[in-house]
Amino acid sequence: METLLNAGAPVTEAALAAIAHMPSASLPALMDDEFARRLSDADLMRIAVLLARKSHDEGGCPIGAVIIDNATRRIVGKGHNTLVQENHPYNHGETSAMRDAGRLDFGRTTLFTSLSPCEVCATLLHMRGVSRVVVGDVTNASGTEPLLRAKGVEVEILEDPQGIELYARFRAGNPELDLEDWKGLSATHRP
Amino acid sequence: METLLNAGAPVTEAALAAIAHMPSASLPALMDDEFARRLSDADLMRIAVLLARKSHDEGGCPIGAVIIDNATRRIVGKGHNTLVQENHPYNHGETSAMRDAGRLDFGRTTLFTSLSPCEVCATLLHMRGVSRVVVGDVTNASGTEPLLRAKGVEVEILEDPQGIELYARFRAGNPELDLEDWKGLSATHRP
Repeated sequence: METLLNAGAPVTEAALAAIAHMPSASLPALMDDEFARRLSDADLMRIAVLLARKSHDEGGCPIGAVIIDNATRRIVGKGHNTLVQENHPYNHGETSAMRDAGRLDFGRTTLFTSLSPCEVCATLLHMRGVSRVVVGDVTNASGTEPLLRAKGVEVEILEDPQGIELYARFRAGNPELDLEDWKGLSATHRP
Repeated sequence: METLLNAGAPVTEAALAAIAHMPSASLPALMDDEFARRLSDADLMRIAVLLARKSHDEGGCPIGAVIIDNATRRIVGKGHNTLVQENHPYNHGETSAMRDAGRLDFGRTTLFTSLSPCEVCATLLHMRGVSRVVVGDVTNASGTEPLLRAKGVEVEILEDPQGIELYARFRAGNPELDLEDWKGLSATHRP
């Protein structure tokens, strides 16, 4: 199949945005394996940030994640936080991408997250054996990186300025939503 | 509205089975508040076990959970593991019931789980501030109870013999599924 994004196509912000919004199962209709292999770690982090932006545009928390196969660098799952959109008490970027990926052997994958993982997601990442986690923002939040490393997960920090700016702006404008996402409504509505 | 299960109706296994299978949003069409108040902790645990049985009948892992409001004892969420049914890498009984409940103040709720929580679920339970967790099986699995207590969650053990027998039988017949549910495919397919 001829695809829009192929060996000769440039890697642009528009290309990364189209990838972010395309359902994972339909990605082969948008880009071929050659193009996928040319996506750098920074490009994949930008896709996670563009998913965060999608969530923000929907009125939700701006956190996104992308999972790739380490050998082929194909995207096997992606998603974003849906606290607001799905009235969902715990679906973060990482859980969303893993739900999208399904019952994979995560030991063969790398997960890119636009924000440092919360404790629940960090526990899920090492329990499911994700081999490598790339974190796009340790400025607005951090803390679980040592836990992940102690559990044998390779952790890299690769900050994305657009993602950091977007999350900082969201948190300043929505402190209760930020807190609820991390701690639940009980944290924001204590009598 | 006149309901099948009301102040005068007996609490039978058939009644608990109907409650287990009814979508949470439709429970008011099945039972009234008087009946809900008469359900004991053991009855609620049996509902969690009947959800585990439902999952098992669907070919899935037999683990279920129920969440009630502490003041009214109304059921506000329930569900079961969907590893097999949804090809879902981390949806356990507890996560399923919390997803069903939505963005509640879990500080006002008790969660009944048919099996001792895994580390991911235990972390989720204390991060979202669930006030009380009742565990129906520490025979087939256990270990996160001290973590929960250390984080301020009230933990009670209330074992259900039917649930313990069901899970033991499942694990004996499906050791790889049991392992995958806890550790992911990477744990079962190490080269």
